[in-house]
Amino acid sequence: MTQETRQWTVAAIPDALIGPEHFELKTTELPAPAEGEVLVKSLYLSFDPTQRGWFNDGPGYADPLQIGTPMFGNGLGQVIESNNPDFAPGDIVNGTLPWQDYAILRREGMTPLSKVSSDFPLTWNMTLFGLTTLTAYFGLKEIGEIKEGDVVLVSGAAGATGSAACQIARILGASKVIGVAGGPDKCKMLVDSGICDGAIDYKNDDLEAKVAELAPDGVNLFYDNTGGPILDAVLPNLAAGARVAVCGGIASGYSGWSMPEGPSNYLFLILKSARMEGFMLFTYAAQFPQAIEDIGQWAKEGKLAVQETISEGLENAPACLQGLFTGANVGKAILKLADPE
Amino acid sequence: MTQETRQWTVAAIPDALIGPEHFELKTTELPAPAEGEVLVKSLYLSFDPTQRGWFNDGPGYADPLQIGTPMFGNGLGQVIESNNPDFAPGDIVNGTLPWQDYAILRREGMTPLSKVSSDFPLTWNMTLFGLTTLTAYFGLKEIGEIKEGDVVLVSGAAGATGSAACQIARILGASKVIGVAGGPDKCKMLVDSGICDGAIDYKNDDLEAKVAELAPDGVNLFYDNTGGPILDAVLPNLAAGARVAVCGGIASGYSGWSMPEGPSNYLFLILKSARMEGFMLFTYAAQFPQAIEDIGQWAKEGKLAVQETISEGLENAPACLQGLFTGANVGKAILKLADPE
Repeated sequence: MTQETRQWTVAAIPDALIGPEHFELKTTELPAPAEGEVLVKSLYLSFDPTQRGWFNDGPGYADPLQIGTPMFGNGLGQVIESNNPDFAPGDIVNGTLPWQDYAILRREGMTPLSKVSSDFPLTWNMTLFGLTTLTAYFGLKEIGEIKEGDVVLVSGAAGATGSAACQIARILGASKVIGVAGGPDKCKMLVDSGICDGAIDYKNDDLEAKVAELAPDGVNLFYDNTGGPILDAVLPNLAAGARVAVCGGIASGYSGWSMPEGPSNYLFLILKSARMEGFMLFTYAAQFPQAIEDIGQWAKEGKLAVQETISEGLENAPACLQGLFTGANVGKAILKLADPE
Repeated sequence: MTQETRQWTVAAIPDALIGPEHFELKTTELPAPAEGEVLVKSLYLSFDPTQRGWFNDGPGYADPLQIGTPMFGNGLGQVIESNNPDFAPGDIVNGTLPWQDYAILRREGMTPLSKVSSDFPLTWNMTLFGLTTLTAYFGLKEIGEIKEGDVVLVSGAAGATGSAACQIARILGASKVIGVAGGPDKCKMLVDSGICDGAIDYKNDDLEAKVAELAPDGVNLFYDNTGGPILDAVLPNLAAGARVAVCGGIASGYSGWSMPEGPSNYLFLILKSARMEGFMLFTYAAQFPQAIEDIGQWAKEGKLAVQETISEGLENAPACLQGLFTGANVGKAILKLADPE
């Protein structure tokens, strides 16, 4: 039996802002699933800045996307037909989904196909249990080695990863959480919502002075989503033995792999006996189940909330991706395609 | 009883290259040692690039030197008269010595006063057991977490710390040691002497290509004495899980605390799950005795040699310090003032 589906393919390679003009919506027929495969009906698609990087040749982890290939991302689907003993019709699965109404999937993908627990709301699998929260969790625990009493500073604090990092930092014992965001509105929101104890407006504040004012004894852990001037402002304000978790750079997602300016204050790593460390999330794949259990528990207790912007309809997928780079979304952007049966 | 001595004091604050014009030689009288103090006859003075930084206000660990104050550095002396039960006349001690023929010392100093073993040649206390070798030892072991089989790259490899780092890296199990130096002569010396398996000429080579050629599977440990272009060239060539021990920056010693350019490739720390870490040597003070035992043993076995440039006469102290910054010295610069009695 074949299954008709709509399918977004790559129509052009973006060289700056990505948008609908870089994709094309077609209709195609899917074959029956081969051995080891399942046919799923897509329920939700998730959008992440890293998807922008897939179009560019460079030091990424995959070959760049080509014109004509189907676009894809993290998503949830429901198994309709299975040719794999590990999955049965009706199962809800998390994996790498093409931007399609229906799709043929194998266990192996950028995100391995896995069944999703029914203990939590479905969208939590894309928001709370998604890459952004997991990145915040492992960045703070494994790279930042967060300790009770730490003063934690988070850049990009109003974004999905940053806002999760602020909340998880407090749960894990931070004595003070300072967020960096652009503009007085976002800064006020961070403090008024209780996510942060103090906020720094990178567009208007004297960064180095403001960090020193808010962290007079120094920053123990800097969770850095952006790099750039805020990184240079934090380095002289690190406490002895501080950790900088390098989790992203502003320039890397938007227009390919151009690097942000290097931190000219990096020699403060010597004076502060401090370190900067990066990581690839999938290094910690074996610990994901424990992380999801922790995160789900915190969310149930009301200690951790993730903002979602839910759009609807496969036809809006390219606009959702573009929204990541124009500031159109608040919190995590997801697209609903269908309800489970 | 008083003791007459010559004494170098600060005559002017350098704003670029330091030299004899910034010091003045006087003659003064020392009082008898007060309780807890000893009178020593100076035997050797040691010269280190960090002394240049003491003249500048900035993010250092001490107030800057003032005009009229005695200049000082690490050195060896012999106790002539003691008012401290821990030291007896005739003891050879290591500590922070003023640039004088004779000096009154207390136990507390930038380097705490300690008796020197007679198991090794005296100058080893300034060369093999000096700050440069200890920095290399702890930088590789504690920060670099060196492992059997590591490919180790060392910048400033022809200098005192760098040359020690290359040799200690091999002793501690490096499968390949690559040194960076300026000019074909220094590079040839590094390879011909057996200190390095390969060398990179930072003045002439295409740095990123040369690192990739010499370390095709990536650099596991980069011991960085210089920063600058070589750091940017190494970052994309790190192996997964690599460590960058940040041990110095070219611009920090010569003309104060201006920082070298930041490493614009630092986001490779993410792709390589790597870290950059700095340290203050005295964090490891409690482990110095073990380090000195290891280093002395390696030297006796002929595995570790430190080059010395020995000058003579207190009147040459300012010129010795200047020589650190003009390339006049090969290996560790020391000044002999007197033989022990």
